[in-house]
Amino acid sequence: MPASYVTHRKQLELILRAWDMPEATAVSTAEIMSWADLHGIDTHGISMIPTYDERRRAGKIDMRARPTVSRETPVSALVDGGGGLGHANARRAMELAIDKARTVGIGVAVVRNSAHFGACGFYALMAVEAGLIGMVTTSASGIQVSPTFGAQARLGTDPIAFAAPGLPGEPFLLDMATTTVAAGKIRNKANENLPTPVGWLVKADGSPSTDPREVAKGGFMTPLGGTPEGSSHKGYGLSGMVNILSSALAGATLVTDPLHTKKPGTMDIGHFLLALDPGLFRDAADFRADVAAFCQTLRATTPADPARPVLVAGDPERRTAARRRQEGIPVGPGLLAKVRDVAAASGAAWIMDS
Amino acid sequence: MPASYVTHRKQLELILRAWDMPEATAVSTAEIMSWADLHGIDTHGISMIPTYDERRRAGKIDMRARPTVSRETPVSALVDGGGGLGHANARRAMELAIDKARTVGIGVAVVRNSAHFGACGFYALMAVEAGLIGMVTTSASGIQVSPTFGAQARLGTDPIAFAAPGLPGEPFLLDMATTTVAAGKIRNKANENLPTPVGWLVKADGSPSTDPREVAKGGFMTPLGGTPEGSSHKGYGLSGMVNILSSALAGATLVTDPLHTKKPGTMDIGHFLLALDPGLFRDAADFRADVAAFCQTLRATTPADPARPVLVAGDPERRTAARRRQEGIPVGPGLLAKVRDVAAASGAAWIMDS
Repeated sequence: MPASYVTHRKQLELILRAWDMPEATAVSTAEIMSWADLHGIDTHGISMIPTYDERRRAGKIDMRARPTVSRETPVSALVDGGGGLGHANARRAMELAIDKARTVGIGVAVVRNSAHFGACGFYALMAVEAGLIGMVTTSASGIQVSPTFGAQARLGTDPIAFAAPGLPGEPFLLDMATTTVAAGKIRNKANENLPTPVGWLVKADGSPSTDPREVAKGGFMTPLGGTPEGSSHKGYGLSGMVNILSSALAGATLVTDPLHTKKPGTMDIGHFLLALDPGLFRDAADFRADVAAFCQTLRATTPADPARPVLVAGDPERRTAARRRQEGIPVGPGLLAKVRDVAAASGAAWIMDS
Repeated sequence: MPASYVTHRKQLELILRAWDMPEATAVSTAEIMSWADLHGIDTHGISMIPTYDERRRAGKIDMRARPTVSRETPVSALVDGGGGLGHANARRAMELAIDKARTVGIGVAVVRNSAHFGACGFYALMAVEAGLIGMVTTSASGIQVSPTFGAQARLGTDPIAFAAPGLPGEPFLLDMATTTVAAGKIRNKANENLPTPVGWLVKADGSPSTDPREVAKGGFMTPLGGTPEGSSHKGYGLSGMVNILSSALAGATLVTDPLHTKKPGTMDIGHFLLALDPGLFRDAADFRADVAAFCQTLRATTPADPARPVLVAGDPERRTAARRRQEGIPVGPGLLAKVRDVAAASGAAWIMDS
């Protein structure tokens, strides 16, 4: 039986605490990781524990770090993550952006010297909860995407999130990697011996392939669009935007730097977080009503298949969250065993299947 | 022989002046339209003249309008376009955003009560010329894109532009519709009796098709990603972001409003323009050096085909502009005849092939 959200979240907190993360940071990080799992963004929650454990033991993440503000104006902040895990860094940065947006209408905070921060959408949603528009991007550690026309990995999954308040509890919430599909989707096809659709990946020589095993043989993921004729230059261009906002602006190491994540010490991932008050331009309630009407009209679009209605960004994740709040958060047996091993080796109590 | 850039631009100015556009507005609008043609963005320059003429004669665009600022703070401005063509409105808005970014580090201006403004990239580039990052979106008048899983047009081409300064004269400049491909590309395939790649369009019932003539038979364009398995929900999500920023924020008519472009009077298209000073976070020269290094490394990616090197957003358009500055701007005979007819009917002198 899956653990409840509360147990799931507490388990993560126990592991993070066992890693010497300060208590408030651990509570906050466990909340953000559990948010991802609750919303079905399974690649960004508990499944990251083995990776985080590896990185902290290799000295690539400093679990004792606390974010500090190294530069600030009424509209902006530069946060130094101190080499820590990204969640608390990005949350602190978005808090600063929100405070500034509440005062002057807009705030931008960037983070350098950080690490993986989980799901972008969480931070964009923080802005929505303050009645604001939120926009968030982050650089990635893994280099696995080849640019359009390329036969070499140069970019990461390079996600972008954008959120705006509409009906209460039903914001527009886009949270997307700028790749065609997540690496996990390609792995799933390989595990099932199924071909992948054209555009999901290219071989090591840059040519298209429908064999998901090509990625393990030196192939690459593709930018959104999939192929040159599907306009993969657009996904590639968006990933450029994400890297410029997340890394170049904050002074974090560029994904194209040969020393990216290979410098001595921690990882130096960068994040970008923006909060914008719609009240700068019109009555904020009118703005929210327009966003709500926009989303409602989109949902009412005639569907190609009545069994698959048209959704709006954020809808699928909210449905998953409603279900998992009732039924608990499922974690596959393989992953669960790995996390239990990490917990045991770290000296953390195990509460998930006791 | 194609007309020179100077003649091309002057011809546009003469037509706009003949439409009673104020002189400064006409000069500015002709410059922006010619910029698109010079850079190979042929869908957004002189080719729009017949459409603009139709709309002005139908009372949908007021050529005598001047933008006014209806609301302003140190970081923001709301511009009322007065029902005029979008170019001068968006340029005025980006000037305001840049002024604010120069003073406080960031500026956002939105425009309502506007019309088609040509190529997004021009305005993003204005920010770059001031040493800033620029981001621009606009709502569209045409409703021709079906959401993922939909069988009904709900959205427009919904473009986004993002620009950042790097090497002098070589900024990163992304300017993309959030659709898979432009309508013109589909029309070209139909004209040549060639099939379209999977993902470019869907039939009127929302099912995929490779027949470009399906669009004329009630079919729809697709969001970037092309198909649900190609992650068209991401392109669809981006077009949602564009509409929220461009229309909902400015209070322009939503593309999903049944009265979109159908209200009495002018079109009420909305635009969003942001300028951000990288000097808020680090030395601006270091930022530009990072953007330049990022672009250079991407260009140096091993190509799949040595004859097709990897490019960076903005490169293809700059190459076209360099060539057209020398050789003039080609305009097909069919379009040229149409524009000449418009000029004659408007009482504008004709200088393009004299």
